[in-house]
Amino acid sequence: IATKLPAVGTTIFTVMSALAAEKNAVNLGQGFPDFNCDPKLLEDVTAAMAAGHNQYPPMPGIAALREAIARKISALYGHAYSAADEITVTAGATQAIITAILAVVRAGDEVIVLEPCYDSYVPNIELAGGRVVRVPLVPGTFRPDFDKIAAALTPRTRAIIVNTPHNPSATVWTAAEMRKLEELLAPTDVLVIADEVYEHMVYDGAQHESVARFPGLAARSFIVSSFGKTYHVTGWKVGFVAAPTPLMAEFRKVHQFNVFTVNTPMQHALAQYMAEPGPYLELPAFYQRKRDLFAAGLAQKTRFRLLRSEGSYFQCVDISAVSDLSEAEFCLWLTREIGVAAIPLSAFYGNGFDQRVVRFCFAKKDETLMAALDRLARL
Amino acid sequence: IATKLPAVGTTIFTVMSALAAEKNAVNLGQGFPDFNCDPKLLEDVTAAMAAGHNQYPPMPGIAALREAIARKISALYGHAYSAADEITVTAGATQAIITAILAVVRAGDEVIVLEPCYDSYVPNIELAGGRVVRVPLVPGTFRPDFDKIAAALTPRTRAIIVNTPHNPSATVWTAAEMRKLEELLAPTDVLVIADEVYEHMVYDGAQHESVARFPGLAARSFIVSSFGKTYHVTGWKVGFVAAPTPLMAEFRKVHQFNVFTVNTPMQHALAQYMAEPGPYLELPAFYQRKRDLFAAGLAQKTRFRLLRSEGSYFQCVDISAVSDLSEAEFCLWLTREIGVAAIPLSAFYGNGFDQRVVRFCFAKKDETLMAALDRLARL
Ligand SMILES: CSCCC(=O)C(=O)O
Ligand SMILES: CSCCC(=O)C(=O)O
Repeated sequence: IATKLPAVGTTIFTVMSALAAEKNAVNLGQGFPDFNCDPKLLEDVTAAMAAGHNQYPPMPGIAALREAIARKISALYGHAYSAADEITVTAGATQAIITAILAVVRAGDEVIVLEPCYDSYVPNIELAGGRVVRVPLVPGTFRPDFDKIAAALTPRTRAIIVNTPHNPSATVWTAAEMRKLEELLAPTDVLVIADEVYEHMVYDGAQHESVARFPGLAARSFIVSSFGKTYHVTGWKVGFVAAPTPLMAEFRKVHQFNVFTVNTPMQHALAQYMAEPGPYLELPAFYQRKRDLFAAGLAQKTRFRLLRSEGSYFQCVDISAVSDLSEAEFCLWLTREIGVAAIPLSAFYGNGFDQRVVRFCFAKKDETLMAALDRLARL
Repeated sequence: IATKLPAVGTTIFTVMSALAAEKNAVNLGQGFPDFNCDPKLLEDVTAAMAAGHNQYPPMPGIAALREAIARKISALYGHAYSAADEITVTAGATQAIITAILAVVRAGDEVIVLEPCYDSYVPNIELAGGRVVRVPLVPGTFRPDFDKIAAALTPRTRAIIVNTPHNPSATVWTAAEMRKLEELLAPTDVLVIADEVYEHMVYDGAQHESVARFPGLAARSFIVSSFGKTYHVTGWKVGFVAAPTPLMAEFRKVHQFNVFTVNTPMQHALAQYMAEPGPYLELPAFYQRKRDLFAAGLAQKTRFRLLRSEGSYFQCVDISAVSDLSEAEFCLWLTREIGVAAIPLSAFYGNGFDQRVVRFCFAKKDETLMAALDRLARL
């Protein structure tokens, strides 16, 4: 059988996690916590199941959860979405992104991605029959280059995918950058798919500049987020999308024939849990401490050059002073020989561009980070 | 924004469930149980969550669940699938079906559906850029018409979607019918997407004729099933796909960029729970009793003509003797005025073909079925 996706293999996250398990390496590759979530959240699931919430929920998600999401967005970003018509609960952020793409991208439409980018975007666009237009973020700083983005816009441009806080680079778009994007798109009808799954992980007092804060962007955007990232339950596969009614109507047409609905007991538990903003308001401090712990250890124990982690739960490092291997070879070697798994940034570029940078995930127990640092000290 | 799916509105299941809730009607429309699952299954979820199984599982599903699925298929249908390479856990059967379609159907490929058919198939094919070829099941009996299927095959036919036990008609394909399909496809390279979500609900001593039993079909088939249907947890959204390695390789390429993975604690619980075959082996008797209770009540209290329910959890009836309304109008009227929700079969035909048949779901507590019968007696 001839493949529809010739460029697609197994994702780098799966490959590295499998190798890490095989080699008993400390897995700082795939982005997930190695600690359990708040026990209260688990109790809420158990209570929901016992109460009989185990059958199909409403197609767009249970009302209580959609209302909690709308309240949060309104409180944090000042944009009022209708819980009834403009919020949909998804089976994780990945399913939200492919669903938005399938809903609006037609054969031949162009979609701009800013590389390095998460590895699902490109095959998602290809499955919709769209044409991928790759625009690099500035190498080294990973900031958006608006001249390059402007040059990539054509009458066939259907959408641009924007991701902040950014995976893998850990940069966070500034308000000025968001305003530039808003201005650039103003004369067009280009849609925005805003991957904001790390929305609650922004450090050093900066704030997350959601597209919801910028009316000219909000009106043309699908905002995608993830409860898995925010509440330390990546395996629950619950996320959400917010979008203006006409966009959401198209989204739901595809959503209902993709997954139809999303896990009922988890939705009830998340709705309960969102009543208190504490857990997500405390997240920046929680992860900033881990970032600082890990970064200080790297600075002290290794010759990696650290890039600044402004957000997300990733720390990137330049490996030039440590190794001559390619990023990908280095990550394999590091996993096998040193016992620490990392992710090469080249995996986030279509052409495998190698700038000597690899990504570590610091969403780990302190003892895991210390164990990794001890091993890295051997470099 | 111009829609990509002009024919798609909100699904009939969502519409009828919403109306039933609004009118306080007994909801025999959408196919889901109104009773809770085995408490043991819930305890298994709670235990999995407490044990920390809340992060990403392996992309194709946890090994223990894939192994349990492979063992079950081997025991029941005599076909050995590799748990490593030929089974993938999905976010419900709907996600399995769209993923199989996106994986193998290219722009311009023809896909045969047998009408009446589940309402996700057609938009799924359209999203893949495929051409839908509609072949009717024989009106009245809902048996496959192999002359018509043969006439629909062309060099562009990529796949046929087969559903047994059949939703909405509640017919079950016989071994002779499956063999005819096997013969018909033998000279072709047409793939089969076998929607077998009601595999454990076959009555009167008949057996489910899975495509897995027929080597010539198994070699070209994606088999799709649903834990939601089998274990009374439709809201958990966990199903699976089995297919030969080359087909599964393509399936997983799309799956990993659609949902990536499926709810971890539910997977652990289901793996535990599948260790005992009791629950699915007892299912035919459990639902046959409900079918008989409901059918006897209908025969005694109404002038509906009953169609034979050979499998699934649906009972179809001919409404001719009771009403002159169209199926769709009748179902709305029945919900509003009599207080019982049903589903019109016309919703499962592209052209709204109306043969005076509506579908009731009997996956309900006995008291729910009795309450519905009391109301239907007023007809
Ligand atoms: C969906 S698996 C990968 C998790 C993640 O977001 C990452 O590691 O980049
Ligand atoms: C996915 S909602 C519909 C449930 C079902 O299978 C049906 O009612 O036909």
